[in-house]
Amino acid sequence: MSKWVYSFGNGKAEGRADMKNLLGGKGANLAEMSNLGIAVPAGFTITTEVCTAFYDNDHAYPAGLTDQVVTALARVEEIMGARFGDANNPLLVSVRSGARASMPGMMDTVLNLGLNDQTVQGLIKQSGDARFAYDSYRRFIQMFSDVVLGVEHYHFEEILENHKEDKGLSLDTELGADDWKLLVERFKAKVQQELGKPFPENPEEQLWAAVGAVFGSWMNQRAITYRRLNDIPQEWGTAVTVQSMVFGNMGDDCATGVCFSRDPSTGENTFYGEYLVNAQGEDVVAGIRTPQQISIAGKEKNASALPAMEEVMPGLYKELVATRDVLEAHYRDMQDMEFTIQGGKLWMLQTRTGKRTAGAALRIAVEMAREGIITSDEAILRIDPEALDQLLHPTLDPKAAKIVLTKGLPASPGAASGKVVFSAEVAEDWVQRGEKVILVRIETSPEDIGGMHVSQGILTTRGGMTSHAAVVARGMGTPCVAGAGEIRVDYKAGLFTVGGKTVREGDIITLDGAAGTVMLGAVPTIQPELTGDFGVLMDWADAKRTMKVRANAETPVDAEAAKRFGCEGIGLCRTEHMFFDPRRIINIRRMILASDEAGRRAALAELLPYQRGDFVELFRIMAGLPVTIRLLDPPLHEFLPHTDGEIAEVAAIAGVDESLVRHRASVLSESNPMLGHRGCRLGVTYPEIYEMQARAIFEAALEIAQEVGEAPVPEIMIPLVATKRELDLMKAVVDAAAKAVFAEKGGEVTYSVGTMIELPRAALQAGSIAQTAQFFSFGTNDLTQTTLGLSRDDSASFLETYRVKGIYERDPFASLDVEGVGELVKIAAERGRATRPGLKLGICGEHGGDPQSIAFCQSVGLDYVSCSPYRVPIARLAAAQAALRSVVKQPAMV
Amino acid sequence: MSKWVYSFGNGKAEGRADMKNLLGGKGANLAEMSNLGIAVPAGFTITTEVCTAFYDNDHAYPAGLTDQVVTALARVEEIMGARFGDANNPLLVSVRSGARASMPGMMDTVLNLGLNDQTVQGLIKQSGDARFAYDSYRRFIQMFSDVVLGVEHYHFEEILENHKEDKGLSLDTELGADDWKLLVERFKAKVQQELGKPFPENPEEQLWAAVGAVFGSWMNQRAITYRRLNDIPQEWGTAVTVQSMVFGNMGDDCATGVCFSRDPSTGENTFYGEYLVNAQGEDVVAGIRTPQQISIAGKEKNASALPAMEEVMPGLYKELVATRDVLEAHYRDMQDMEFTIQGGKLWMLQTRTGKRTAGAALRIAVEMAREGIITSDEAILRIDPEALDQLLHPTLDPKAAKIVLTKGLPASPGAASGKVVFSAEVAEDWVQRGEKVILVRIETSPEDIGGMHVSQGILTTRGGMTSHAAVVARGMGTPCVAGAGEIRVDYKAGLFTVGGKTVREGDIITLDGAAGTVMLGAVPTIQPELTGDFGVLMDWADAKRTMKVRANAETPVDAEAAKRFGCEGIGLCRTEHMFFDPRRIINIRRMILASDEAGRRAALAELLPYQRGDFVELFRIMAGLPVTIRLLDPPLHEFLPHTDGEIAEVAAIAGVDESLVRHRASVLSESNPMLGHRGCRLGVTYPEIYEMQARAIFEAALEIAQEVGEAPVPEIMIPLVATKRELDLMKAVVDAAAKAVFAEKGGEVTYSVGTMIELPRAALQAGSIAQTAQFFSFGTNDLTQTTLGLSRDDSASFLETYRVKGIYERDPFASLDVEGVGELVKIAAERGRATRPGLKLGICGEHGGDPQSIAFCQSVGLDYVSCSPYRVPIARLAAAQAALRSVVKQPAMV
Repeated sequence: MSKWVYSFGNGKAEGRADMKNLLGGKGANLAEMSNLGIAVPAGFTITTEVCTAFYDNDHAYPAGLTDQVVTALARVEEIMGARFGDANNPLLVSVRSGARASMPGMMDTVLNLGLNDQTVQGLIKQSGDARFAYDSYRRFIQMFSDVVLGVEHYHFEEILENHKEDKGLSLDTELGADDWKLLVERFKAKVQQELGKPFPENPEEQLWAAVGAVFGSWMNQRAITYRRLNDIPQEWGTAVTVQSMVFGNMGDDCATGVCFSRDPSTGENTFYGEYLVNAQGEDVVAGIRTPQQISIAGKEKNASALPAMEEVMPGLYKELVATRDVLEAHYRDMQDMEFTIQGGKLWMLQTRTGKRTAGAALRIAVEMAREGIITSDEAILRIDPEALDQLLHPTLDPKAAKIVLTKGLPASPGAASGKVVFSAEVAEDWVQRGEKVILVRIETSPEDIGGMHVSQGILTTRGGMTSHAAVVARGMGTPCVAGAGEIRVDYKAGLFTVGGKTVREGDIITLDGAAGTVMLGAVPTIQPELTGDFGVLMDWADAKRTMKVRANAETPVDAEAAKRFGCEGIGLCRTEHMFFDPRRIINIRRMILASDEAGRRAALAELLPYQRGDFVELFRIMAGLPVTIRLLDPPLHEFLPHTDGEIAEVAAIAGVDESLVRHRASVLSESNPMLGHRGCRLGVTYPEIYEMQARAIFEAALEIAQEVGEAPVPEIMIPLVATKRELDLMKAVVDAAAKAVFAEKGGEVTYSVGTMIELPRAALQAGSIAQTAQFFSFGTNDLTQTTLGLSRDDSASFLETYRVKGIYERDPFASLDVEGVGELVKIAAERGRATRPGLKLGICGEHGGDPQSIAFCQSVGLDYVSCSPYRVPIARLAAAQAALRSVVKQPAMV
Repeated sequence: MSKWVYSFGNGKAEGRADMKNLLGGKGANLAEMSNLGIAVPAGFTITTEVCTAFYDNDHAYPAGLTDQVVTALARVEEIMGARFGDANNPLLVSVRSGARASMPGMMDTVLNLGLNDQTVQGLIKQSGDARFAYDSYRRFIQMFSDVVLGVEHYHFEEILENHKEDKGLSLDTELGADDWKLLVERFKAKVQQELGKPFPENPEEQLWAAVGAVFGSWMNQRAITYRRLNDIPQEWGTAVTVQSMVFGNMGDDCATGVCFSRDPSTGENTFYGEYLVNAQGEDVVAGIRTPQQISIAGKEKNASALPAMEEVMPGLYKELVATRDVLEAHYRDMQDMEFTIQGGKLWMLQTRTGKRTAGAALRIAVEMAREGIITSDEAILRIDPEALDQLLHPTLDPKAAKIVLTKGLPASPGAASGKVVFSAEVAEDWVQRGEKVILVRIETSPEDIGGMHVSQGILTTRGGMTSHAAVVARGMGTPCVAGAGEIRVDYKAGLFTVGGKTVREGDIITLDGAAGTVMLGAVPTIQPELTGDFGVLMDWADAKRTMKVRANAETPVDAEAAKRFGCEGIGLCRTEHMFFDPRRIINIRRMILASDEAGRRAALAELLPYQRGDFVELFRIMAGLPVTIRLLDPPLHEFLPHTDGEIAEVAAIAGVDESLVRHRASVLSESNPMLGHRGCRLGVTYPEIYEMQARAIFEAALEIAQEVGEAPVPEIMIPLVATKRELDLMKAVVDAAAKAVFAEKGGEVTYSVGTMIELPRAALQAGSIAQTAQFFSFGTNDLTQTTLGLSRDDSASFLETYRVKGIYERDPFASLDVEGVGELVKIAAERGRATRPGLKLGICGEHGGDPQSIAFCQSVGLDYVSCSPYRVPIARLAAAQAALRSVVKQPAMV
């Protein structure tokens, strides 16, 4: 016979803290506290396996459950010295859900269960307080009817309000025992009226109905949504804990409160909490009465006029402090506890690991490690790498009021306000005259870079997590909300509309790039502050990780930011971004328009000094560190002129007819540019482009070698390779340029030539490609696009539906699709290294900054990850966690 | 010591016919004839391995070669009774290339080698003809200088012409011995003048220089191009055959000729050939003298006034017939032979398998099998499946003059002429008034279908072998040249320009869809004729193949054509093609524009009867055969209105504002539609679309079940699946529709639900997807696009460069990329069948009609291939060949 029910109470328990999967967080911790000898109201937990069986078997309970519940209930009666349904000395219980992961407020709870017209008399005897007893009874009817019977709350509120009106009263506290007794009758009559049958008076019937309702609430819409947002699998199920009631509202020797073993906002090692005398738990949270501080220190710090528990109940306070010490030492982490004092006796109702701000998490982890409570490895594993973002970017003031206009994708973290502008040019103009702006575009293109750089934030209505706007904004550390599809932009009219509201150029909006929200007006933000703890934790992390962390960066600004955040080189320098400067784009355009190689070479010669200058700057910043440079990648038409003015300009400079420019642009336009004439295909068809770029790299490297005394080691990367032969041809071009430059300048630098693995074919052919490639860098953006057949720019419109319908749990552009893309990465790594042992492997797609993806990279043995500058610290921490978990098999944090 | 040189002559030889790889076709067959006791001038062959070594070692010969050549030459001297360089009785030789595969005219040849001022005297003695000897000498100098020394032909032509002019003569035959002697002097002086050194007189020096030149010609541009066009690997190399000269021009008891053991044009079993008395081989081919027929029958058939060899040299003719019988019986195939008669003795100079027309190939194979010369399996293997295309489509009259404007991709075979039109509407108008038209478009879209249907041929300037135009044209059997990128279309002006020529609307052009050429004016064509032999061979093929052959078809016209060509069901019915009819597209547009599900359902309800009608027709034609129906696949914006008129029409019918239509169109537009909101993503976001389609299928199936008495078996195919969950969701929609229709109509049909495997992720996840999928169909068009990251519509611009540079040997959209795409197909087949043994596997990409790809499909165990109707016979034959080769490992035909 399976064990479905676990009892606890009276200093012992059948469960333990490590049985969370079976008993839920609440049930496991109640058992653990019971075993620790802490006073916990006796009870029992029905396991999550019952929940699973319940859903697998069409809402039927497994055999044996009833008997086990009866036995457990008898044990509770014995411990608590009261009997369920006893008219003289009734046992009352609470029925609560408790899942493996905390899902606050998502599922249902029933309190005071066991009350009926008989047992309420017993409660009067026990408490000596008829008003309290009838109040408890009506609360039970209200809650049970709402949660279990589906008779909604407002029915009862209405009756209560009518009664108060009739009697000319305004506060519940003004009602007496008779009022509540009368209301109990009216509540029950309402239930009879709504359901056509009476309110169940039988306590056992009440109990089973409540248990069923709690299991049922696992599948309510609220819970489903919460699980989806928090990556909690449906099959985990919930446990149900049935526990004897204790009352904090039975008189002035009663109280209830919540407390944290350390301050959850700052992480300071101080006992923090709030309580209320003669109150129920919900009163502390609900904000009807102002809660009081538990400690004198807290009272002073919060400038509270109300007495602290330390003053009012000094003995019980000491007991609570002792319990706090026991629990924190036992759980070795900051605890979030709930307690109730009934008739001068302290009962602990719950303990769990406390939620905390990113800053507090950092401080607690570092301090606990210093205090010897945990090891530094544990400290590393305690911090959610994603939470570091909060420490690096401004965040919205949580207390500020917000008018949310719409939600898009959280494309680049940070919060910012500014005046709406609809073009990069206007952005630059307005910023020059001292305005702060938010650039709003349907989508951005490389030509918008200037305007993006000066904007406080970027908002697009199209495009996904790896769209141009998102990638560039992350690189700059600028907040960005992308793909806010409900917004309709009208460039001509200079406005956008969303949900019936119109926002015009110059109106102020606020973006929260971490949440993806767009708000009207200026919402105050909090500036980030990096503490010494940050540096300490990063040092610990760096000592543990085995993968290097590089940055995707091409501008000196980005490169310097990345270096400040501790990158160990550049993993992806996208050379095309260097060509959008007005002085350069004109020559790129001339090159594209040239009808022959000679014409292209002439234009490229003009570009060479600029390109060389770019590399000189990068090499100087990254002195001594590796720099991976990707040769020209995007479809050429991205560089083409669009406006009539630009077309005329190019035609004039190139000395050709405007119609030729237009024709060439139409010839270059592609139906699916992502799969078109780009990457090494440009190098294959126009080798002189890659030749110029290689020359610029080698000339710059020699220049820096002379200046710094130590030569940089350029890693030259050929994009979009599908066959070994493409790489052979392109490597020959690079090698020839090296030979020529070395001969001209009379010097040499070491360099390597490798390839992006960003096409499924390249992954499959990695064994052959590695004969030529000296390194692989996984371009997982493109690899995701091709493996899934999914355009990063076009998928925003349906990816949300896909997530809702459970097809992709997470955006595959944000977190690497391990089953599909991951298998190709694994195949490529294995085949590549089989050909060339020690082949250097890295990842330079956006996934390089995603902790889950970084863990995957560790598992397949990559040498480094590369990510946007502002994600470097996240990657360093995530890499350390991955390294630690790969040694001792520790489960990922939930 | 390696053997580099193989001797032959005098009834024996060191080589054999099966040593083609080593000796080249010519050398191997000379050896074989020698072994058969046929009179062959003695000689020796330097192997292809020497060629490879020559190129691997910087143009140096391997050790031992010189000695082996000296020995072999001595043996030739002994057999022929003459000595190389002997002034009295000189041995003269020819030096010819001979590769494994025939490369006619691509490489160099030197005749009469060994002549110099001394040995020419010996030749005078041998022949008793000083004119002949000096003429031979000057021919040698001309040929050797051109081929070996690089002194071009025109120098000598000029001297010859000047001399004739001086003497007032016009024909070479009017020159005497003294003239030729003088010219020999002048020719040598010219060489001295051009090179600054004398013409080499030493025969051994001549020999080695000629051998080097022949090896060198393996890498001339002409040969490289030919190999690329004919898929001949460079590493095969060429052999060099040195053979003693025999002369057909030493008097009237001399002759030379070429003959075929059967008629190469018709395949008729009759001895066919031409000869000339007192002539050299080149005279027969060059067309200076009119060649005579060898047989009296041939003379009569060709109405030739000149005497046949059978009449002039009856004894030698009999000898030749006997040789023909020996060789055809020995080689068991039609032979193409060259012979020379010197002084009344017949010498065979070459025999090889003769080239033939497709019709002749068919007749010869079938008749030889009937004659018992070969088996029917061999007959099957003898026919190049691609050649069947010639039998199914009109071809250009090979004798007609052509003005070629440009070349594009050979997208759909057949030749056709017509007046140029630039839009589908004009095409329909003009055809209605009785014109024949060629539709010229930059690219075509589904809305052009009407115009494409009525056109004689289709020409596009953009797009590849699987572009819309190409796929549709092949389906219709209409000639198509696609991606002719040199053409510049100006729709406004109603003209196109190419290579400086302008072609206006109404001008006549001719397309050769098998070659990809575009010609000015009307070029006469030859209509195809299917003989009984075709049916016989197809029956033999059908008996041998293990894979089924289905057709990609959706219209009744296509389906009927496919059935006529012997398809065994439909492997791909694309339902979107059914929606472009004007009465339907308006409802598709309404559906897309609907803002909610109810609006979409209303529009879909209007479409249901049309869609049901389509399936009724298809099921009726395919009665008893499986029909795989792919649910809606393309991005919705393909259906959107483009012109202002269309927008107004849709807005009016849908009762919405035009600006809404425009906005919706802009929302639906995608940067990379191929990777966008299409395939099952439409079904996931708008399940009602697939629901309507499923309903139409089941209603139609029940209707036909009642009408025909036997229910069709619809195979419902979900496109663009990447995850099992997508298929689960879509299968649930289909199953629910089935349940509903079956309940309404009170009947049932068997059906299955499967998926396209057309994304790399789907291939990798095939094991999981096969839990739900009841069949897989490999959509290798999309799988190629995603695996290679290559857009079929955009790659035409660089694929040619890719082919020239040796990156892809064949267009990966025409012939399956076995290394990349093939590995994914293999993985998917294995994983799918591991989950579901007996899972039905097919291919429905364009590769399903490509013989090489069909062989691959056989190797991975697919159950069927599906291709366009006109390729069904090709696929049937290719499948039979693949089945035969997979049993007995026979090499593919060259």
